[in-house]
Amino acid sequence: MTPEPWAATVGREFELIDRYFARPTPGAVLGPGDDCALVAVSPGMELAITTDMLVAGTHFLPDTPPEDLGWKTLAVNLSDLAAMGARPRWVTLAGSLPDEDEAWIAAFARGFFACADRYQVTVVGGDTTRGPRNLCVTALGEVAPGRALRRDGARAGDEIWVSGQPGAAALGLAHLQGRVTLPEAVRGTCIAALQRPEPRVDLGLALVQQGLARAAIDVSDGLLQDLGHIARRSRLHARVDLPRLPPLIWTGPGAREAQLAGGDDYELVFAAPPEARAQLLALGHALALPLTAIGQLHTPDALVAGDPGGTTPSPDRVSVYDGAGQPVPIARQGFQHFD
Amino acid sequence: MTPEPWAATVGREFELIDRYFARPTPGAVLGPGDDCALVAVSPGMELAITTDMLVAGTHFLPDTPPEDLGWKTLAVNLSDLAAMGARPRWVTLAGSLPDEDEAWIAAFARGFFACADRYQVTVVGGDTTRGPRNLCVTALGEVAPGRALRRDGARAGDEIWVSGQPGAAALGLAHLQGRVTLPEAVRGTCIAALQRPEPRVDLGLALVQQGLARAAIDVSDGLLQDLGHIARRSRLHARVDLPRLPPLIWTGPGAREAQLAGGDDYELVFAAPPEARAQLLALGHALALPLTAIGQLHTPDALVAGDPGGTTPSPDRVSVYDGAGQPVPIARQGFQHFD
Repeated sequence: MTPEPWAATVGREFELIDRYFARPTPGAVLGPGDDCALVAVSPGMELAITTDMLVAGTHFLPDTPPEDLGWKTLAVNLSDLAAMGARPRWVTLAGSLPDEDEAWIAAFARGFFACADRYQVTVVGGDTTRGPRNLCVTALGEVAPGRALRRDGARAGDEIWVSGQPGAAALGLAHLQGRVTLPEAVRGTCIAALQRPEPRVDLGLALVQQGLARAAIDVSDGLLQDLGHIARRSRLHARVDLPRLPPLIWTGPGAREAQLAGGDDYELVFAAPPEARAQLLALGHALALPLTAIGQLHTPDALVAGDPGGTTPSPDRVSVYDGAGQPVPIARQGFQHFD
Repeated sequence: MTPEPWAATVGREFELIDRYFARPTPGAVLGPGDDCALVAVSPGMELAITTDMLVAGTHFLPDTPPEDLGWKTLAVNLSDLAAMGARPRWVTLAGSLPDEDEAWIAAFARGFFACADRYQVTVVGGDTTRGPRNLCVTALGEVAPGRALRRDGARAGDEIWVSGQPGAAALGLAHLQGRVTLPEAVRGTCIAALQRPEPRVDLGLALVQQGLARAAIDVSDGLLQDLGHIARRSRLHARVDLPRLPPLIWTGPGAREAQLAGGDDYELVFAAPPEARAQLLALGHALALPLTAIGQLHTPDALVAGDPGGTTPSPDRVSVYDGAGQPVPIARQGFQHFD
């Protein structure tokens, strides 16, 4: 155990890490270098806490550029804060690294701090050790009491919205793995969505501040699967209408599947009352981020009684309908990872 | 990434983890199962944050009993909070596991929650993934503003104190590795010190509440090395007197080295003004935890001018003296890990 973040342990790789990670921490009472960091939570605010561990081969391709990996390691955690509508404040980073590679550490730090700076997060501490490559971030944010966008807050009649272009990251992964060949016009967008996702922090904050959404989640495992968590927790059933989905970014094989079931997008899916529609469209315009209403949440009973698809509600509480109002069968595997 | 702690990812090992780790979380506004946990920090309190990553082979013997490992994974983090004088409140646990082994997970959870219950900590979330065994905890505690026991708060003239029996854990490790053979009378104590260390939470809290200490650190890398961090941060020099050290728990080969340089003890070393002596002895009695004054902190100048050992101050700002007042040479390697 290294009780002194970045600095305590004897060893050149830790000196390297100290060099690349020791930065001023104006957002903290006490930054790295003691047994703990100290921070002052804003009076009256609740603290939102999330942690994510990334393992080489499981969560990122082994040849992912380290600068992109640094960005993404932080971004996926900030995305969890965004999905609660919390303002990111502080993070810790613990890492296990197989060897000392100054160029790798420098590039990783560059990407990590680029994301931290973009979202005004203070890196307050960490731990480094030798071992198989593994990166673990804990992120802390603030949200007004009772205002967090939980998964269980949706109500029957709420519309289902999604930000951005879900599916782009899965297409980027498929391209990098040689399963599809994306045209140049969309390739960059899709690979960037995979390797440098933008956590929708500003959207989450605006949804809370303007009181527009009742529930939210970020799309990490796939649009339908993650929407299913909102439906299940809110004891509702989600109906998604294919024609209402954002236009496909590319129309080749697997594109629709990527949109519905591809992971790693970090867009937000949220439930909002129908009367919020105009404000949400204006918000999307203000954020330069498309917000699209793709369906509606119902009580399971209403669905069974009044709707052709409702007679066979999915165990995942999500049904998809085509333009003719017919239910589209969704294979179980469609809910799992695209790869 | 698993956005839903313990529960989201498809896979039997994650169901197992959900079964063993999903517990009521009365200490949180919202526990595991959403994008983030939500907690309410007590009004006016600062938040202390620490994170530690444990890797098999580096931080624990591969055959460490999983229940002990569960205890220790949490205990080493609570020790960092104790060393700040913070009250432990919430923790997250992220783990990478190589395979699904229900007995291993059940035993690990038993040890982890035994420690959480003992120190009244709420496990608010986590993340699980498949990969080489790696455990990462982030612990959050509360401390009154300005009262935390930082490393840089010691003053010239302060006495140096240590809790318990530093060196016991290193002896336990040496025994398990076959480098020494401990007599039965001390074997259990030493192995327990290694595998189930008690974070000195109550001591840290009392030091802050009674205003008795000005600086503290926990002994994770060795008494002298960790004391050196206090000296360096406080811009002082530490003098340790061998005859004042706690009686050796065992007098075989390596015992003194284990006491001075053995890691993994998680006792507290702290600096206190001389006038606190009587209160500290009473506190140790009340906690049933020996507290021993082992030396004093000086300005480096005073040491050089008035003291024979002071003419060659250690680069680690710690000098050791024998019963005749003669400086004891401390090899650099004495400051590194015992193993």
